Amino acid sequence: MEMVSHEKLGLMSGGFVWVKGLFAKLVEVASKTRALGKDDPRRVIHSLKLGLTLTIVSMLYYYKPLFANFGVSAMWAVMTVVVVFEFSVGATLGKGLNRAFATLFAGALGAGAHHLAALSGHVGQPIITSIFVFLLACILTFMRFFPSIKAKYDYGMMIGILTFSFVSISGVGDDEILLLLQKRVSTIFLGVCVCVVISISISPFWAGQDLHNRIALNIEKLALFFQGYGSVEYFKTLQDREAKDDKSIQAYKSILKSSGIEDTLYNFARWEPGHGCFQFRHPWKQYLKIGALTYQCAFRIDALHRNLSSSSFQVSQEIQTQIQEPCMEMSMETGKALRQLVSSIREMTQPTLAEIHTNNSKAAAKKLKASLKSSRLWESCDLLTLIPAANVGTLLVDVVDITEKIAEAVQELASLAHFKAAKPAEAAIQSEKEKVEPNSGVSFVTIPIGSG
Amino acid sequence: MEMVSHEKLGLMSGGFVWVKGLFAKLVEVASKTRALGKDDPRRVIHSLKLGLTLTIVSMLYYYKPLFANFGVSAMWAVMTVVVVFEFSVGATLGKGLNRAFATLFAGALGAGAHHLAALSGHVGQPIITSIFVFLLACILTFMRFFPSIKAKYDYGMMIGILTFSFVSISGVGDDEILLLLQKRVSTIFLGVCVCVVISISISPFWAGQDLHNRIALNIEKLALFFQGYGSVEYFKTLQDREAKDDKSIQAYKSILKSSGIEDTLYNFARWEPGHGCFQFRHPWKQYLKIGALTYQCAFRIDALHRNLSSSSFQVSQEIQTQIQEPCMEMSMETGKALRQLVSSIREMTQPTLAEIHTNNSKAAAKKLKASLKSSRLWESCDLLTLIPAANVGTLLVDVVDITEKIAEAVQELASLAHFKAAKPAEAAIQSEKEKVEPNSGVSFVTIPIGSG
Repeated sequence: MEMVSHEKLGLMSGGFVWVKGLFAKLVEVASKTRALGKDDPRRVIHSLKLGLTLTIVSMLYYYKPLFANFGVSAMWAVMTVVVVFEFSVGATLGKGLNRAFATLFAGALGAGAHHLAALSGHVGQPIITSIFVFLLACILTFMRFFPSIKAKYDYGMMIGILTFSFVSISGVGDDEILLLLQKRVSTIFLGVCVCVVISISISPFWAGQDLHNRIALNIEKLALFFQGYGSVEYFKTLQDREAKDDKSIQAYKSILKSSGIEDTLYNFARWEPGHGCFQFRHPWKQYLKIGALTYQCAFRIDALHRNLSSSSFQVSQEIQTQIQEPCMEMSMETGKALRQLVSSIREMTQPTLAEIHTNNSKAAAKKLKASLKSSRLWESCDLLTLIPAANVGTLLVDVVDITEKIAEAVQELASLAHFKAAKPAEAAIQSEKEKVEPNSGVSFVTIPIGSG
Repeated sequence: MEMVSHEKLGLMSGGFVWVKGLFAKLVEVASKTRALGKDDPRRVIHSLKLGLTLTIVSMLYYYKPLFANFGVSAMWAVMTVVVVFEFSVGATLGKGLNRAFATLFAGALGAGAHHLAALSGHVGQPIITSIFVFLLACILTFMRFFPSIKAKYDYGMMIGILTFSFVSISGVGDDEILLLLQKRVSTIFLGVCVCVVISISISPFWAGQDLHNRIALNIEKLALFFQGYGSVEYFKTLQDREAKDDKSIQAYKSILKSSGIEDTLYNFARWEPGHGCFQFRHPWKQYLKIGALTYQCAFRIDALHRNLSSSSFQVSQEIQTQIQEPCMEMSMETGKALRQLVSSIREMTQPTLAEIHTNNSKAAAKKLKASLKSSRLWESCDLLTLIPAANVGTLLVDVVDITEKIAEAVQELASLAHFKAAKPAEAAIQSEKEKVEPNSGVSFVTIPIGSG
């Protein structure tokens, strides 16, 4: 009796633990889901958009006049929606056009192959068809390895093999094949059209806009680093720096981790029509160039940061007074130049003011080089502590060079994409402001001061 | 008369130019194709394998007994081959299993939804079905944003939405639906089986093997750098170094460019059954850890390389005699340690000898630090030229730390994957050899000296 009740208790508590575990798991999944949606609410909208598109297309099935016409082929429209509807307009358009035109061309080719094979009678037909299918599959599969084809037409190649096989091996007559093909192509076109229309008309997500924002954001992350370091005294002790060493300074690290995303966005953006401030043939390629330079800059900043935060980094009072000023000025001016570039990209205006800051930081770099060479510095202080400081200085000079290249690339983008000129009045006020407070330590969480 | 003949000549020469251009283009495409095939001959084999599989499956269409059973559904098998057959076994298996099981489960769910909707009569059915389709599409699409699901089940989610929509909106009776579903599932399973069997039986390309080779190759590239620099006098003049600065030394740069490939290979390798020397639950994740450390090491090597090849890098005779020896020794020993790790990974033996070299390079690092601190160095030479040399030394010390971490990670891999012990006799001979010729400047193009 007691044993049985013990067992019952054991079972109950076991069941309780299990339910508790399940509940904890559910709570975890729910919180993860909320985090994912909060992180980028466009994910939720995208899911709803796909659900809506699919529902609309599947309704065709129930709407008799259309269904009677398409028959079972209406399935192809449903299939098209699921396969083609992607997050950004560019990806959807690219996949949709690939699917539609690959079906059209490969279908026509398949019909031709079917007709040719049928000429050789009942025995020869399977053999000839198989040879055709084998050859086309081999050629198109190999073509998918070409990088230029892979970037733009990978999906089309696959659909090409698919449709060609479908049509050429189908065991029906030539007339029926044409009817089948016509139905397939029209339902697929219909599906693609619905996808594209809904993708563009209901809160569209443009890959081009994403690329544009991303490049601006990455340059801003570099600016955060320079302004973060420039606004404090440069060669503080390790402890002081660690307190200062908050996340906004280290934002540049994310640039190093996600270098492939820009290529993907570029491939999608090429499919997109003009939208917002972007014309049809916007120079998207230039963004990749700026992105590569930004990556290189982040790469060097990482070396600089490691140097500054290394435990062996100790700087004496003498060095502080000697080379701190040019270092701070270089850092601040580079930060300001980058900020100007960011606001120039964001507002699509000419980056006229960036040049002033680039020149300022180049002048500071010269000053730094001169003081590193002056014998006064070498005589007055402990040599072992000078090396890391001098090293930091050299790295800074190196970084200023890359910043100049970034500025040139943005200038090139501005002229390629015909950015409008910055308003002269505002620009003047802006530069006045800068003169009054040259080292005011602009907080790096403020919104960038616009120039147009 | 003359004008006409002139025009003719013009047309002819125009036509000739056109033909010439076409011919040049064709030659270019042909040479590109050959280069692509030569670069990795597996691409050609993959194309042939896909062609073969597709031909075999499409033959089902002509083989009456099977065709009579499957009917038009045989198309699904053809479709499955085109969509599922990927380059590596892991990718094919992953996509195939995703497709097969997603079709099975979503099909059953769709049949249930169809049955439920049918209960509500002719008017209610479309509405209820649409609600089901909308909900499932939204949920599964959102689930695709979860990184863990995206890595393994992305394709399954898509096929799930597809099959559920297909089955639930099909306008046929319950019995027919079950028959349709049974046919679809069986043809898809058939297609997947043929793909997997051919992918494994005819010259299989394993993603796991690729990952294994790739990691070993990347460590070898690091070793090439160290042995390349260690075998020459370290602080040569710029001109001397540039002559030496051949491609084998700069091989490490490719590591920086392709950091995403390992993640992809890892995701595929997880699907693969045991093959060759790899058991089913081979610790693939450990390769990612080693890969990340290799990337970091290459990152620092790049900074080191930039320092050494910078135009301002000038080293006096004094420095050469003072710090060259420890730098060379560190470089050589690190290179040897890395080589040992490479051969340990390649031959799947315990990396026993690597530790000796790691310790040697640590000892050299200590020596270097000591001579950098000694006042003799500071007094005897030009200070401005000392900074870059000291900087190179510091970077080298930094790199040795990471090499040690790589050695630890490989050791961990060896114990996780139960690598066999290196043969003691050979190991002893090996270490004897090392003692006799400690700085023999092993050429870095020789095949790694095996330890087991």
